[in-house]
Amino acid sequence: MNLAEKYLSIRKHAEQLCEPLQIEDYVVQPVIDVSPPKWHLGHTTWFFETFILIPYSTSYQVFNEDYNYVFNSYYETVGNRVIRTDRGNLSRPSVNEVYQYRHYVDDAMVFFLSSEISSEVLDLVILGFNHEQQHQELLLTDIKFILGNNPLFPIYDVNKKESLSPIINSNMLTISEGVYEIGYDGNDFCFDNELNRHKVYLNEFEISSTLVSNQEYLDFVSDGGYQNFNFWHAEGWDWVNTNKIKAPMYWHLIEGKWMNYTLQGLKEINLNEPVTHVSYYEAYAFASWKGMRLPTEFEWEIAAQNFNWGERWEWTESAYLPYPGFSKAAGAIGEYNGKFMVNQKVLRGSSIATPTEHSRITYRNFFHSHLRWQYTGIRLAK
Amino acid sequence: MNLAEKYLSIRKHAEQLCEPLQIEDYVVQPVIDVSPPKWHLGHTTWFFETFILIPYSTSYQVFNEDYNYVFNSYYETVGNRVIRTDRGNLSRPSVNEVYQYRHYVDDAMVFFLSSEISSEVLDLVILGFNHEQQHQELLLTDIKFILGNNPLFPIYDVNKKESLSPIINSNMLTISEGVYEIGYDGNDFCFDNELNRHKVYLNEFEISSTLVSNQEYLDFVSDGGYQNFNFWHAEGWDWVNTNKIKAPMYWHLIEGKWMNYTLQGLKEINLNEPVTHVSYYEAYAFASWKGMRLPTEFEWEIAAQNFNWGERWEWTESAYLPYPGFSKAAGAIGEYNGKFMVNQKVLRGSSIATPTEHSRITYRNFFHSHLRWQYTGIRLAK
Amino acid sequence: MNLAEKYLSIRKHAEQLCEPLQIEDYVVQPVIDVSPPKWHLGHTTWFFETFILIPYSTSYQVFNEDYNYVFNSYYETVGNRVIRTDRGNLSRPSVNEVYQYRHYVDDAMVFFLSSEISSEVLDLVILGFNHEQQHQELLLTDIKFILGNNPLFPIYDVNKKESLSPIINSNMLTISEGVYEIGYDGNDFCFDNELNRHKVYLNEFEISSTLVSNQEYLDFVSDGGYQNFNFWHAEGWDWVNTNKIKAPMYWHLIEGKWMNYTLQGLKEINLNEPVTHVSYYEAYAFASWKGMRLPTEFEWEIAAQNFNWGERWEWTESAYLPYPGFSKAAGAIGEYNGKFMVNQKVLRGSSIATPTEHSRITYRNFFHSHLRWQYTGIRLAK
Amino acid sequence: MNLAEKYLSIRKHAEQLCEPLQIEDYVVQPVIDVSPPKWHLGHTTWFFETFILIPYSTSYQVFNEDYNYVFNSYYETVGNRVIRTDRGNLSRPSVNEVYQYRHYVDDAMVFFLSSEISSEVLDLVILGFNHEQQHQELLLTDIKFILGNNPLFPIYDVNKKESLSPIINSNMLTISEGVYEIGYDGNDFCFDNELNRHKVYLNEFEISSTLVSNQEYLDFVSDGGYQNFNFWHAEGWDWVNTNKIKAPMYWHLIEGKWMNYTLQGLKEINLNEPVTHVSYYEAYAFASWKGMRLPTEFEWEIAAQNFNWGERWEWTESAYLPYPGFSKAAGAIGEYNGKFMVNQKVLRGSSIATPTEHSRITYRNFFHSHLRWQYTGIRLAK
Repeated sequence: MNLAEKYLSIRKHAEQLCEPLQIEDYVVQPVIDVSPPKWHLGHTTWFFETFILIPYSTSYQVFNEDYNYVFNSYYETVGNRVIRTDRGNLSRPSVNEVYQYRHYVDDAMVFFLSSEISSEVLDLVILGFNHEQQHQELLLTDIKFILGNNPLFPIYDVNKKESLSPIINSNMLTISEGVYEIGYDGNDFCFDNELNRHKVYLNEFEISSTLVSNQEYLDFVSDGGYQNFNFWHAEGWDWVNTNKIKAPMYWHLIEGKWMNYTLQGLKEINLNEPVTHVSYYEAYAFASWKGMRLPTEFEWEIAAQNFNWGERWEWTESAYLPYPGFSKAAGAIGEYNGKFMVNQKVLRGSSIATPTEHSRITYRNFFHSHLRWQYTGIRLAK
Repeated sequence: MNLAEKYLSIRKHAEQLCEPLQIEDYVVQPVIDVSPPKWHLGHTTWFFETFILIPYSTSYQVFNEDYNYVFNSYYETVGNRVIRTDRGNLSRPSVNEVYQYRHYVDDAMVFFLSSEISSEVLDLVILGFNHEQQHQELLLTDIKFILGNNPLFPIYDVNKKESLSPIINSNMLTISEGVYEIGYDGNDFCFDNELNRHKVYLNEFEISSTLVSNQEYLDFVSDGGYQNFNFWHAEGWDWVNTNKIKAPMYWHLIEGKWMNYTLQGLKEINLNEPVTHVSYYEAYAFASWKGMRLPTEFEWEIAAQNFNWGERWEWTESAYLPYPGFSKAAGAIGEYNGKFMVNQKVLRGSSIATPTEHSRITYRNFFHSHLRWQYTGIRLAK
Repeated sequence: MNLAEKYLSIRKHAEQLCEPLQIEDYVVQPVIDVSPPKWHLGHTTWFFETFILIPYSTSYQVFNEDYNYVFNSYYETVGNRVIRTDRGNLSRPSVNEVYQYRHYVDDAMVFFLSSEISSEVLDLVILGFNHEQQHQELLLTDIKFILGNNPLFPIYDVNKKESLSPIINSNMLTISEGVYEIGYDGNDFCFDNELNRHKVYLNEFEISSTLVSNQEYLDFVSDGGYQNFNFWHAEGWDWVNTNKIKAPMYWHLIEGKWMNYTLQGLKEINLNEPVTHVSYYEAYAFASWKGMRLPTEFEWEIAAQNFNWGERWEWTESAYLPYPGFSKAAGAIGEYNGKFMVNQKVLRGSSIATPTEHSRITYRNFFHSHLRWQYTGIRLAK
Repeated sequence: MNLAEKYLSIRKHAEQLCEPLQIEDYVVQPVIDVSPPKWHLGHTTWFFETFILIPYSTSYQVFNEDYNYVFNSYYETVGNRVIRTDRGNLSRPSVNEVYQYRHYVDDAMVFFLSSEISSEVLDLVILGFNHEQQHQELLLTDIKFILGNNPLFPIYDVNKKESLSPIINSNMLTISEGVYEIGYDGNDFCFDNELNRHKVYLNEFEISSTLVSNQEYLDFVSDGGYQNFNFWHAEGWDWVNTNKIKAPMYWHLIEGKWMNYTLQGLKEINLNEPVTHVSYYEAYAFASWKGMRLPTEFEWEIAAQNFNWGERWEWTESAYLPYPGFSKAAGAIGEYNGKFMVNQKVLRGSSIATPTEHSRITYRNFFHSHLRWQYTGIRLAK
């Protein structure tokens, strides 16, 4: 594939994810962390328009000046943003207009990519690809949230699976003590937060070859795990009580039976699937209950060569912090990662919502401790 | 018109109001007091289904059992309600499904109304008509809010006027002291809160023959009315400062010029139109600034035979309280008015959003003091 | 008593109310509506200093310039106020310093009152007396709140009674229809909100000769009154559920027995005493449960010549609104009453916390519907 | 000193810190993070009573059963706690009663410590000493907050200095790359969070020999540091704007001059003193502005052998996380540290509020990123 083909292939995936939607599903924002699907479609388009077409494509005409106000997310450098809570209040631009915007920018990008571009611009294009893919992950989980919190429990796609293979034959892998190298050092794309490959010292540790299953997590629930403060961080315990949390997001106890809202609709819990939609607080509490712990992100990166991963984002014990020598880029692109490096936890791996080619062993995702609308999961260590 | 024709005529008006909308406009709820248009369409339909078809139409099959959960508003008697803040989170049922629901119920109602009905049921049908008309008023003002708070300021209808005639020849009418009769005593429909015609004693008072104009209100703004606590109630002053209120809702100071969002889009302020979208706090402060006051609802009802009204809901000084001998009906219908009789102000008249035939001189509308998304206005007294 | 003696007599009462206190009790502010006792002592002193001594006593030296910042309550005209929520954060000035301030101002006032004063100043002095007495009412109820919400339930005074005589021989008085005169027209002091004696038309009504007793209210509690939305205003019902209200303030169900915190400590409920510490919402719901209603303030004023009152502030159905012809005075004194005339309910009578001579049949007290830390009570009408 | 003498010596220090206070100062809680001084005095006493006297001193009689309810802080194991926001509402027990309680427990402890005690109990006693000392640090900073947020700016002690020596001759120290050992391995007391001495790999880094001075921080303020989002974390920037932060806590721009509230009262800023009362967000933003960064806690522990520390708690870049092999103790003592290991930052060193002997190079303190009422400071690295 040449660059323009690659561009179209990536862009097309977002629209495919939206195919099962009604127009109404594109519009709502049930909670602050979930964005309306049409916003994702517009925002990723705005990214290519703002950072590539406007500065580098001389013939480009802006589609609509007001869209900067609507589709900017958090780039303080670029102009006033619409505060995030407002996204669900905006009925316009319509879904149809967003698609027109999208295709207008796509045409301009394909034209632009057919000419010679500098390596500086190529880097921005590749960043745009990865940015688009990150939003595709959010797009699917935001759609699931919108449908899954509707009292009618609409089905997204009867054929869409959320897990690939049942959990069997779990065992503990042992990694020996020593100095290891962490971080990306290849020649392909990576985010700035993965850079500066550097040494860390690891003590000997054990780590599970598999994720925690629904069966194991159900045992924790049944054993009163949500009622015993001993397993929880103080702020996790407050979170449980304030929000009356009793199980993973999307689990519903209906007439005595645990049901699970999935992209295929409301189903009985599949006990052999990896548990998902748990917060860091829950992952930690589950590990405490087991007498174990979560791995650090460094332990994970070293051990992951020896087990399968890719269905669930895996919570680690590590806080999201800069690697030694990290420095953020100048300008709006520099706002990408560095300014979030406080009070978040690192997740490693990838999930069934992750687009193909958008994962690698050094990838560092991060979320606040209480969030659980992503396909998060748990892997134990000790 | 027979009853079925009357039914269809009233029901059709709601759909006409929605004709200029995109599907997306039906879905959002920007603030708690504004409901999504599709919710209004569904809720008024649910009212006929729940209070007429289910109890009285023997052959009727409920359209969808789950809709009671979605479209009930505040009738505690009938079942769990969706809390109001959640209405804007519901992408389903879709707009198309709501229209299907609407037409299904319309067919059943027309069939039902073609047979003999008791006077008890007739009363419920007439109440349903008036309930629908009340929601049509809200429907138009909610649509205005949804469009008017969008940064793209979309036009609703280039031909839709919000005022009928310019304000000219204002003068003060004098009403003499004495015992007057207040409340409805005709034979047509009225709400329970208008009943029990009774005597009140009024002192002599003067009242303006016209509403306050944009020009007069602009003078108040220009004179620093929003910066001087002396004109305001203590809680009005807090409201101004907490919400940084500087002018009526929909007024925007753009490049030194006062603009006004209207159903025809963003326009320069029309100085001869009656001011609208002011809260009770603002109406009171304006009157204080003028050295005058607002009329009571009793003064208004007596005086209104002598002036034109019908473009703006007019704030009165009166609190919304029961008339002597008021008692609420049994069951869900009894929840209609009585339970709101605390901490709200009475408005009299009607507005350009009021459906034809849905106004009379004894009609009592009521809103909280800070609300201003209705076509509220000011008439002075002293 | 001459004026200086009268001054000292009134001022002394506040200090007598504080005699049972520990220094610590003077300082705290458990909720926003309750002020620390030392604040009351300082604020009433500041009132005499600011409105009488500074403008009219030529030789007067201000005690401490910073106290205006600390003891101003809500008089926007006079300077920046300490926002009310902050009062309980101020450990200084100390209680001892507040008493020094108080006695310094008392000395200056006695000196000032020994000379000739104009009738204008006399009016301000009398207003100061009444202001002090209003705060004495609050002082006692605020003290009760501070002690009564402490888990140690400290006793204020083992001899302090909260009711004078048991409720017996209740009957309904009938008042006939007609035009009546309302408002103050004597020559002594009254507040501006009582002025402008004017005519109102009353329908025939019945009103109880006694207050509702604890026994009657306990029947309402036992009958599930707090669990049935039918008796409540919509916002009263929200208040009950949000705050988990199950009984009057200070009632505690301890080991199956209803106990009542009183100024004499925690006691079993005295069934023959008038119920107290109920909100307007509760008064209304109780009346609905009885199939009756609360009187309006006009009905109360006419009927009160025929029954005993003075133990409880009695909730009325009336909203707090200006009488015909009401106009507020210029300057800070004008802020006294008028600016609160929205979204509050009128209470009539007086309570066991009311200082002698500080009550009359035309007195209009007012509080928000949810408040109940005053000695509020219920009288039924129909 | 024998153990009883040591006990009394430590306990006496808390009372010495309170000597300059008025009784009123013991009572208030201006913000949730600051506890009333009398609560600290009671809580540390309750610790000795609950964890030592009650389980191990056979003859001990509890002073007052209700005090467990009042003075428990957050030990879920031991009983219902008073939620933290309520502490400032409790006027009782009085200060005098708290001192009685304190001396009653002191007598019992001295008696108990005069007998033979097991090593298990000795460990608890030593933990009680350290717990008391931690609260003495909070006691002084809470007192400063209570006085420093009073509009009268009362002086705590005209002789109490907040810094020991002026900042001069700053230079950068270089530490070379390699594997280092971190954590406590001595035989004296340390907290569980310092245990498990373990290896970490450090890259070469430079670290300043001195703290950042007021002069340097003033340069940051003057250069618009609080107005430029580029220097801040996203949530730091929100914190700045939401709270309108413009300078360190206790700095006041008065008539164009920067003043500083200190324990000696309001003073001009001393430019050669180390800056203090800054949040982590501010420390990070300052370092960004300098083109540098904060050290990690591991870098700090290794480098601190080469510079002076002890005046300010120093923010590090490290999140508060368990060391390899950390496990929390069983029972209430186990709640001491582990449950706070999420979303907090590590501070290293100690401050002028730290009691003698209560500091060591491996000590790990921790606070939330926005807090700044401690004597926090900044040391730069790169």
